[in-house]
Amino acid sequence: MTVSELGERAVLARIQATLSATTRLTDGLVLGIGDDAAIVAPARNTHVVLTTDAQVEGVHFERLFSTPQDVGYRALAVNLSDLAAMGAAPRYALLSLAMPPSLLVEEVERLVAGVGRLAEQHRMAVVGGNLTRTTGPLVVDITAVGEVAPRRALTRSGGRPGDAVYVSGSIGGAAAGLEMLRANPEAVSDPGPEATAECVRRYRRPEARVRLGVALARGRAARAAMDLSDGLADAAHQLAEASGCGIEIEADALPIEPAARAWWEAAGKDAVAHALSGGDDYELLIAVPRTWGGRLRHVRSRVAEPALTRIGWLTKDRGARVLRRDGRPTELPKGFEHF
Amino acid sequence: MTVSELGERAVLARIQATLSATTRLTDGLVLGIGDDAAIVAPARNTHVVLTTDAQVEGVHFERLFSTPQDVGYRALAVNLSDLAAMGAAPRYALLSLAMPPSLLVEEVERLVAGVGRLAEQHRMAVVGGNLTRTTGPLVVDITAVGEVAPRRALTRSGGRPGDAVYVSGSIGGAAAGLEMLRANPEAVSDPGPEATAECVRRYRRPEARVRLGVALARGRAARAAMDLSDGLADAAHQLAEASGCGIEIEADALPIEPAARAWWEAAGKDAVAHALSGGDDYELLIAVPRTWGGRLRHVRSRVAEPALTRIGWLTKDRGARVLRRDGRPTELPKGFEHF
Repeated sequence: MTVSELGERAVLARIQATLSATTRLTDGLVLGIGDDAAIVAPARNTHVVLTTDAQVEGVHFERLFSTPQDVGYRALAVNLSDLAAMGAAPRYALLSLAMPPSLLVEEVERLVAGVGRLAEQHRMAVVGGNLTRTTGPLVVDITAVGEVAPRRALTRSGGRPGDAVYVSGSIGGAAAGLEMLRANPEAVSDPGPEATAECVRRYRRPEARVRLGVALARGRAARAAMDLSDGLADAAHQLAEASGCGIEIEADALPIEPAARAWWEAAGKDAVAHALSGGDDYELLIAVPRTWGGRLRHVRSRVAEPALTRIGWLTKDRGARVLRRDGRPTELPKGFEHF
Repeated sequence: MTVSELGERAVLARIQATLSATTRLTDGLVLGIGDDAAIVAPARNTHVVLTTDAQVEGVHFERLFSTPQDVGYRALAVNLSDLAAMGAAPRYALLSLAMPPSLLVEEVERLVAGVGRLAEQHRMAVVGGNLTRTTGPLVVDITAVGEVAPRRALTRSGGRPGDAVYVSGSIGGAAAGLEMLRANPEAVSDPGPEATAECVRRYRRPEARVRLGVALARGRAARAAMDLSDGLADAAHQLAEASGCGIEIEADALPIEPAARAWWEAAGKDAVAHALSGGDDYELLIAVPRTWGGRLRHVRSRVAEPALTRIGWLTKDRGARVLRRDGRPTELPKGFEHF
């Protein structure tokens, strides 16, 4: 049955039923889905952090490469990643869907279940949203609300010359995973060897670095942060620009996902260039003053995963965007534009 | 020039420049557009109210009948109306645009100016958002954030049998205005007689009843409220359902916009039925206990516009949805489904 056959009210009722589990987990929720708006009670002496990100079919995802659950999971994960990059703890989400009339009710329920599953993992409540039809592709727009203590948020602009630059986890996996899916769409249901499966998983279900971001902010262990939604090169440019610094990255230090490196090298491609420009990694790029090493080690002792790798430093020369390869300075590739 | 020709970064820079005026007006704003997320400091001892609503080209608006400024204005106004229906004061907004690549940069700037103008009127800050391309129609998705004192919010479920039911302003104007535009698209630029112009204006630039909603909540002068986004009949059904009551509406008491009544009667149509089912009015429907008349008069002495008209009452019989015409009970028409 399609959403237009079932009708707006009935689709909404099914979505509410699917999401009601998330609203039991949150103590600050005063009024959830079903009224003109939701009401929440912020914790005392906290700031509220607000972000929104949309996923459009045919632009951010293809039905061929993602299940409906993946699409819902990912739509929330990219917002969680933005909160993590601020050091904010996720609390609430609003889910706005623009649906083609031919969309199956079953697909909507699976998509919403994907949102709900990830929300439950982070003890977030989905407190409201909006449903509309569209003559175009499915649009999944999520607004996420988090909390952070005053003066603890990690901004892009907080970096200073001399700060060490770290990246979490590994890079390139999601971009290689999408290439693997394009080369072999059947990898959605049967991803094959473990290495391929890891890259495909990274693309389909990115893991936002929420625990790490929150711990870095609470422990005052980073001075600036942003997430890698559009790739490491893009994030490096933007963090340096916002902080009024130059930046230098060591190619040899980059934690490139081994399966991604193998995939690109087998095709005779430059793995460093691909890993730097590949999007969808949702790792964190952070800047840490040299004297804050003790605080960083303290955070690492409590949040051991994902790894943090030192890949470079911020410099005084504002215009400098350097990628050092085999010791030689080259220009850091440009970032990615969405349209 | 189209948005794809100018590129994402440059479009974003123009939007930020247009909206920067709104961020000067708000004292609680800690960090606005340009980082991974926005940060705001809620006022002490207030609850945060969250709502989201999307406007889709071809579904909620047509370029033929609305200027880009109208589209932006309306996209924010429908969210303000949801806040007003909770009695919440508007504070912040997030603007998420899914844009076809052929969209002109000039149109985006005008749309954003429409959002910004209404935001400034309400001293709201547009603190963030998202840009993406789409292969489908333009989607304007806004999340609005308001504030309300604890236990003062107006919910749909607060009504009790015996409460008097009031509606603000007039109904039917927007629906008639859209019909007038469909009959004569040139009315967008030259609306003709004053009466026509009023209906067309109501459709293009709905006025959210923010001052009234906030005053009702602060003055404890209403027990339940919702807005008329999908028409009075729909709102009456939903408010009664949520409050566990029946509802009875007097057809003769309905404040039908005179120009709309004349338009429908000239076409031999039932003005009452059209005014009840016509959407886009964005007035407030409220329920007031009989003993709260003094409080309501006090609010009315401070917020004289829009008018409040008593149109009926809530009843004990949960299933009853009555429209009384010339004294005879008939069934209240059903509400509207979006797809």
